[in-house]
Amino acid sequence: MPEVTLLAYERVESKIEALIQKGTLRPGDRVPSVRELCRREGVSKITAMQALSNLEAKSLVQARPRSGFFVQSLSRLPLPQSPEIAAEPREPCLSDDVARVFRDIQKPDTIPLGAGTPDVTLLPTAEIARCVARAARLHATQFGGYSMCDTDLALRREIALRLSRSGGEVSPEEIIITNGCMDALNLSLRAVANPGDTILVETPTYFGLLQMIESLGMKAIGVPATCDEGIDLHAFEGTLKSHRIAASVLIPSFGNPHGANLSPQRRQAVVDISRKRGVPVIEDDIYGELGFGSEQPRPLRTMNHSANVILCGSLSKSLSPALRVGWAIAGRHAENVRRLKWISSITTPHVTALAAADYLRAGGFDRHLRALRKTLETQICRISNAIAKSFPQGTCLSRPAGGYFLWVELPWRIDSMKLRDAAIKHNISICPGPIFSLEGEFGHFLRLNCALRLDDKVTQAIETLGRLAHGLNSPTRS
Amino acid sequence: MPEVTLLAYERVESKIEALIQKGTLRPGDRVPSVRELCRREGVSKITAMQALSNLEAKSLVQARPRSGFFVQSLSRLPLPQSPEIAAEPREPCLSDDVARVFRDIQKPDTIPLGAGTPDVTLLPTAEIARCVARAARLHATQFGGYSMCDTDLALRREIALRLSRSGGEVSPEEIIITNGCMDALNLSLRAVANPGDTILVETPTYFGLLQMIESLGMKAIGVPATCDEGIDLHAFEGTLKSHRIAASVLIPSFGNPHGANLSPQRRQAVVDISRKRGVPVIEDDIYGELGFGSEQPRPLRTMNHSANVILCGSLSKSLSPALRVGWAIAGRHAENVRRLKWISSITTPHVTALAAADYLRAGGFDRHLRALRKTLETQICRISNAIAKSFPQGTCLSRPAGGYFLWVELPWRIDSMKLRDAAIKHNISICPGPIFSLEGEFGHFLRLNCALRLDDKVTQAIETLGRLAHGLNSPTRS
Repeated sequence: MPEVTLLAYERVESKIEALIQKGTLRPGDRVPSVRELCRREGVSKITAMQALSNLEAKSLVQARPRSGFFVQSLSRLPLPQSPEIAAEPREPCLSDDVARVFRDIQKPDTIPLGAGTPDVTLLPTAEIARCVARAARLHATQFGGYSMCDTDLALRREIALRLSRSGGEVSPEEIIITNGCMDALNLSLRAVANPGDTILVETPTYFGLLQMIESLGMKAIGVPATCDEGIDLHAFEGTLKSHRIAASVLIPSFGNPHGANLSPQRRQAVVDISRKRGVPVIEDDIYGELGFGSEQPRPLRTMNHSANVILCGSLSKSLSPALRVGWAIAGRHAENVRRLKWISSITTPHVTALAAADYLRAGGFDRHLRALRKTLETQICRISNAIAKSFPQGTCLSRPAGGYFLWVELPWRIDSMKLRDAAIKHNISICPGPIFSLEGEFGHFLRLNCALRLDDKVTQAIETLGRLAHGLNSPTRS
Repeated sequence: MPEVTLLAYERVESKIEALIQKGTLRPGDRVPSVRELCRREGVSKITAMQALSNLEAKSLVQARPRSGFFVQSLSRLPLPQSPEIAAEPREPCLSDDVARVFRDIQKPDTIPLGAGTPDVTLLPTAEIARCVARAARLHATQFGGYSMCDTDLALRREIALRLSRSGGEVSPEEIIITNGCMDALNLSLRAVANPGDTILVETPTYFGLLQMIESLGMKAIGVPATCDEGIDLHAFEGTLKSHRIAASVLIPSFGNPHGANLSPQRRQAVVDISRKRGVPVIEDDIYGELGFGSEQPRPLRTMNHSANVILCGSLSKSLSPALRVGWAIAGRHAENVRRLKWISSITTPHVTALAAADYLRAGGFDRHLRALRKTLETQICRISNAIAKSFPQGTCLSRPAGGYFLWVELPWRIDSMKLRDAAIKHNISICPGPIFSLEGEFGHFLRLNCALRLDDKVTQAIETLGRLAHGLNSPTRS
């Protein structure tokens, strides 16, 4: 901590703020009253009230009439409603729009509300660096080989072990270590589908997935997904019946961008329907360990009768993007995925796989995850409330129970592409809705990243976005 | 060195052996005479003669009548002649045979003559480990990001710098860091060709390339290549004219398996012909820095008018396979390759890219390469001579001027698949010829890896292979 002399109210304010940030006080919890603060902190009533009022201004707490102050819980804005989506297979085509979003993120001094990357301060980078340095030293001679399967066995065991805690029995043999989750998704898609084939995806869904399908010469067909329940099971089964689908790619846990977490019953239904129709499911589980509740969701691959599911995961969102450690747990497709990995890039570096295994084994991961989940929950809550305060009336908002993102539905008049153009002039990047679908639907939606370093600049940026949105909401504008 | 008491002749023998291994004495050089050895080493004539005769038994030196002993130069076996090859596009299909070769290599205690991997003793693994550990420590916070383009800029600069020494002007901007050379080839193929397209390859060529083309749903067409001149330019141009070719994939420097090194004139011709026909060339340059001569070959990408060439290289054969550092220098296709890299696996780990840059910058790479090249040359020479001694009459042999491999043509009766089956029972792995072509031609060829730790076991293995080959050469066998 830098040595600064805090005023009395600042000291009280930052104490409570720390309790909220660390999750000791959780959304909805009662904050110590003015009287308690006076007694415990030895401050005057005015000081205590100043502290609470500052916290309220930061959207960290809210006053409830005659009850005192409470940690802000999620805004009560209504949930977004998805527009009707195209029901026929298409070749995705959205490279230019996505490229623009990436250029936005990479601009220096831009507030990365459009990113999908965690802020470095949320990750234990020094510990990871130590694990990598140690692995390099201890396994120096391994730099001389291609790190065949035995080198990454330690990591595969750790991954199998973690899954076994959620009741999943997978063998280290069916795990293939990949260069992050995208590599796993890419190899899995190629293992079960061919160019020209049609892939079923949720809509809205992660734009990188649509780009990947496009780059492999495949087509995609969308099935609606909502922010509360996730993929529409009726439409899912209907599409599997009415179309020849080579594979589905779903994000059952804290979907990107909608944030929905499939219930255990719906998970089993997805597995059963897919099994009945003989269509493999590729499960993007990249946010699967980032649930805010007490239990983490069970991947599809650990449900009953899930041998036709390929689970794709990674440490990129939970530990380190740059480690580039991901995996495919490929059930009956394992041999095929392994062969494609070999043909496409031989293996991943042994040093990062060994470092990851070392980190997971050492046991600090769960502690780190607990802290990360709390931070994400608090930040999502704070940003939600800031949106509720600043955005035009009619704005709807997802209430994710995990992950990084908020999915915002603006009043229909507001074109999120135009909002992006306006925002970037204020050094604010956002992800406009149309890149999350095949036909550019979701024109008045946007995705906001909450895994950032939440400071005053961010809350100001939300205010600015709200102001810009108000400006675009005028009926007199073309 | 372990403390053993050497006999006098052993001492002399190992001194000369060391001079040859380190390249102080090169193939064809005269070895000190018996008289000189007596004087310089203070040994008896019998001792000196014993030492020389032992070296001759190891195929390290050869006696020339009335001239004394000379360091063995490459065997004078005739060069292999390629069989006629299929002249129509096919979908490659050789996964089972290749899988068998890989199983062979991975069996413990197998002599990896079938591998394409350098022995760990040939590589500066401790130095690499130090660079990786240092990069992890110095750039710890980078583990928090996705290592965008700025993180690997140092490596891209080093690569551009190395190329500039062979007269090539490439900008770091057109270099994309990949997960080894296979990743670079895969991305390059996808950048310039689509599923269903036809890719021109040399025949024989690297089986991994044929598998990759198969896995991308593309077809391949072969153009003959010889051990002395490389690809047949007339056939190359003819095929580009007569067929609709989406891209050529060539290995101009020390081709795998044939070992040929394209002359500068032929390199320029390949570039010019390809430019005239508007067909991109993907250049697999993985052995490009492993030439035994005083000058290393110039990649196609550095010739005139080569913007349509994509150079794919890596450190896997020259420094460390497990570092998984490769690159595509993609000329006018750079943007497309970069986009595909992003969609397929985002980036490579920053820590290995920074470590590689650090190693290259520190200047030890050239010293290491000089030593590696000498070792490879000596070992190729020794194994060649062992083959000449043990293999059936009629055996032909490549004379590579760089790289890892010998390409052996056995008498036509000998089925190299059967030789593989017999050899593996003796714990010897070999690469049978048919996997290097589209139609299983080269049935009596095999590829031998010389980048191994050359000890008595290896020379015995060559003898064993020779004996097995003799057995399969009998006209009475089915």
